Amino acid sequence: MNTTGYNGIEHSNTNINKHSKMSTSHVSPIVNFQQSCEQKVVPVFPWFAIDIGGTLVKLVYFEPLDLTPDEIRTEGEILMNIRHYLTSNRAYGQDGFRDDDLELTDIELGGRRGNLHFIRFPTARMSIFLDLCIMKNLHTLTFQVFATGGGAYKFENDAVNKLKLQWCKCDELGTLIKGLSYLSKLNPNECFYYEEPQNDANLNKHTFNFDIKNPFLLVNIGSGVSILHVESETNYRRISGTSIGGGTFLGLSCLLTGCSSYDEAIKLATEGDSTKVDKLVKDIYGGDYERFGLPGHIVASSFGHMNLPEKREQATKSDLARATLVTVLNNIGSISMMCAQTENVDRVLFSGSFLRINDLSMRILAYAMDYWSRGKVKAIFLEHEGYFSAVGCLREFIMDKDDLINPSQH
Amino acid sequence: MNTTGYNGIEHSNTNINKHSKMSTSHVSPIVNFQQSCEQKVVPVFPWFAIDIGGTLVKLVYFEPLDLTPDEIRTEGEILMNIRHYLTSNRAYGQDGFRDDDLELTDIELGGRRGNLHFIRFPTARMSIFLDLCIMKNLHTLTFQVFATGGGAYKFENDAVNKLKLQWCKCDELGTLIKGLSYLSKLNPNECFYYEEPQNDANLNKHTFNFDIKNPFLLVNIGSGVSILHVESETNYRRISGTSIGGGTFLGLSCLLTGCSSYDEAIKLATEGDSTKVDKLVKDIYGGDYERFGLPGHIVASSFGHMNLPEKREQATKSDLARATLVTVLNNIGSISMMCAQTENVDRVLFSGSFLRINDLSMRILAYAMDYWSRGKVKAIFLEHEGYFSAVGCLREFIMDKDDLINPSQH
Repeated sequence: MNTTGYNGIEHSNTNINKHSKMSTSHVSPIVNFQQSCEQKVVPVFPWFAIDIGGTLVKLVYFEPLDLTPDEIRTEGEILMNIRHYLTSNRAYGQDGFRDDDLELTDIELGGRRGNLHFIRFPTARMSIFLDLCIMKNLHTLTFQVFATGGGAYKFENDAVNKLKLQWCKCDELGTLIKGLSYLSKLNPNECFYYEEPQNDANLNKHTFNFDIKNPFLLVNIGSGVSILHVESETNYRRISGTSIGGGTFLGLSCLLTGCSSYDEAIKLATEGDSTKVDKLVKDIYGGDYERFGLPGHIVASSFGHMNLPEKREQATKSDLARATLVTVLNNIGSISMMCAQTENVDRVLFSGSFLRINDLSMRILAYAMDYWSRGKVKAIFLEHEGYFSAVGCLREFIMDKDDLINPSQH
Repeated sequence: MNTTGYNGIEHSNTNINKHSKMSTSHVSPIVNFQQSCEQKVVPVFPWFAIDIGGTLVKLVYFEPLDLTPDEIRTEGEILMNIRHYLTSNRAYGQDGFRDDDLELTDIELGGRRGNLHFIRFPTARMSIFLDLCIMKNLHTLTFQVFATGGGAYKFENDAVNKLKLQWCKCDELGTLIKGLSYLSKLNPNECFYYEEPQNDANLNKHTFNFDIKNPFLLVNIGSGVSILHVESETNYRRISGTSIGGGTFLGLSCLLTGCSSYDEAIKLATEGDSTKVDKLVKDIYGGDYERFGLPGHIVASSFGHMNLPEKREQATKSDLARATLVTVLNNIGSISMMCAQTENVDRVLFSGSFLRINDLSMRILAYAMDYWSRGKVKAIFLEHEGYFSAVGCLREFIMDKDDLINPSQH
């Protein structure tokens, strides 16, 4: 591990521009309307929110495009440098990345127009990141930080003591749904499904017209997995979960293949054959287990071949990574299906950073859901995978409500 | 792998004693009664049945103690040698074992008195075992073989072609329940539970008075896992299952620790600490995730620490084996709990060879079920773990019914 310092988000060391916690100097007419109705104001820039997960930190940053001359004049060098640095780079040091393909340009948020940026870095770098903030004098800015995810709790004392900022914690599942509600309305292509997940030549990826008002299952695959039954943006329950999630895939892949990153593990899995590792129904039965409708090609025992030395010798690193992926996904799919049946819903949305650059996983999940439900339950995926909690947290920060996004609907 | 030959069940090469498929020469009065009522007869000795699972072959052998002089005279050398060899050894070659601690002595089965023996060997040796049967002229005996488990299908052609015997296949889940019904009535100590599974000093292991007539969940943990909702010996459904079972534990343990047997893997797991490998809720939250009632000590992400090189260096083989065990068990426990809630049952019985010499696993499962159900769902375990399907299959072979065990109840 590189412990020489987190090189994630850097900017030049400059003079300090103190901000009041709230300001209305840049408030647009729409926000003024909101303000007059609800006695709420939106905070000053910078607008960002942070979701500190078990493996990844997800950061969303709103870059304003409608800065007033007054705002530009009072912005100060630190904030200006943050804005320029974040928006002009794709990689921050070794481990920080901006997913520029996910960027949402010229959108409206909290009454302002701007671009929404999506940035991630490993949670293992969080403490180093805080130290860097001090080194760069960021701690002298007295703005609020809105944080979600488990790390919002774990790193609270560290952050408050080191940065002397106001640290506002939001529940990660509440913000997840808030972010989903926002992005699914804002981005017409946010939700999609595969018509033929097994057809390599033509997956038939289609936009799904998602309406949050009908009950659905939300399966969030991060390090672990949470399964929510959602009836509306504010009415939801965590009904199940499993510890066999993205962290399991990455951790086991590192152990079994010697790989060192998620991207590497996914690449290996893409090239592998899990049937060299897993024992299928036909390996035990010689064919289907007809009486209970279990076809020969499904997995009877994950890693079930690996007790035999000759099978271990034959299995490649790619085969092991693929088997790990299939094990994790089948389990998530199976538990999700049980939950969908119990809750009587026909839509299962999958979110979470585990699905990043992971077309393969989405197809495996889509096929599994389709197969086991006989086409009754649809697996739906999301373009912004793991960023919903961060986006929901940003909406909490700017006190944004759905009224602002689709005022005509309310 | 030793491919020099399976040394499981051997006896001297002798002359051949041809048996008719059915004979009543040894039939006792009770069986005569049954015969007259139902026009059924019990087969000649030897009485055995075989359950060919994904990993282990389980064989049960009934050693008659009430042989008539006529039977002794006509038994023949091959059968006599089988009887003497099976009952006087505990190990058969390198991989075959008789679990003599499970032996049931002087019991009644199919109207006869005798001892019931429990023998196992790896399924990987099955083909070699069949070849050995030919070599020893066993194939010249024309008795029936009753087989269950997936291997009853997979090895059918091989067995019939090589041994020229009548090969009768029984469904493994049907025989599982039939065997459970029989043994739970026959053996007063068959079912048990732990009152304090976390108390190393005193587990408080108690006999459970099991009545098959009240609905229960039966979770059979072999290479994979099947979950049945059982309402009676003949009325049951396979409601769920998972491929993350005993085969996963053994396969992953072999890959991660270099061990080569189940016993070794369990020993390693007993000495390990899974929290060095798994990411707990408190590792992500710094404490409990209070809003959704997730305490800090539960696993948030199985193997979730293993993406970090320094954590991998710190984890011992024992820690990895323990984490593998905990991952598999937590998942089984969680899915079982969901099923118990859906089916509204308060008793979950765990069977299967995975629980052999595995007090640790039973305690982990017992604690998990107790914790997550707040004491409402009881985890019940079985002394004869993985042998129920073989016993049920033996009952099919001798056409035994519950009437014979508890005639007063019918």
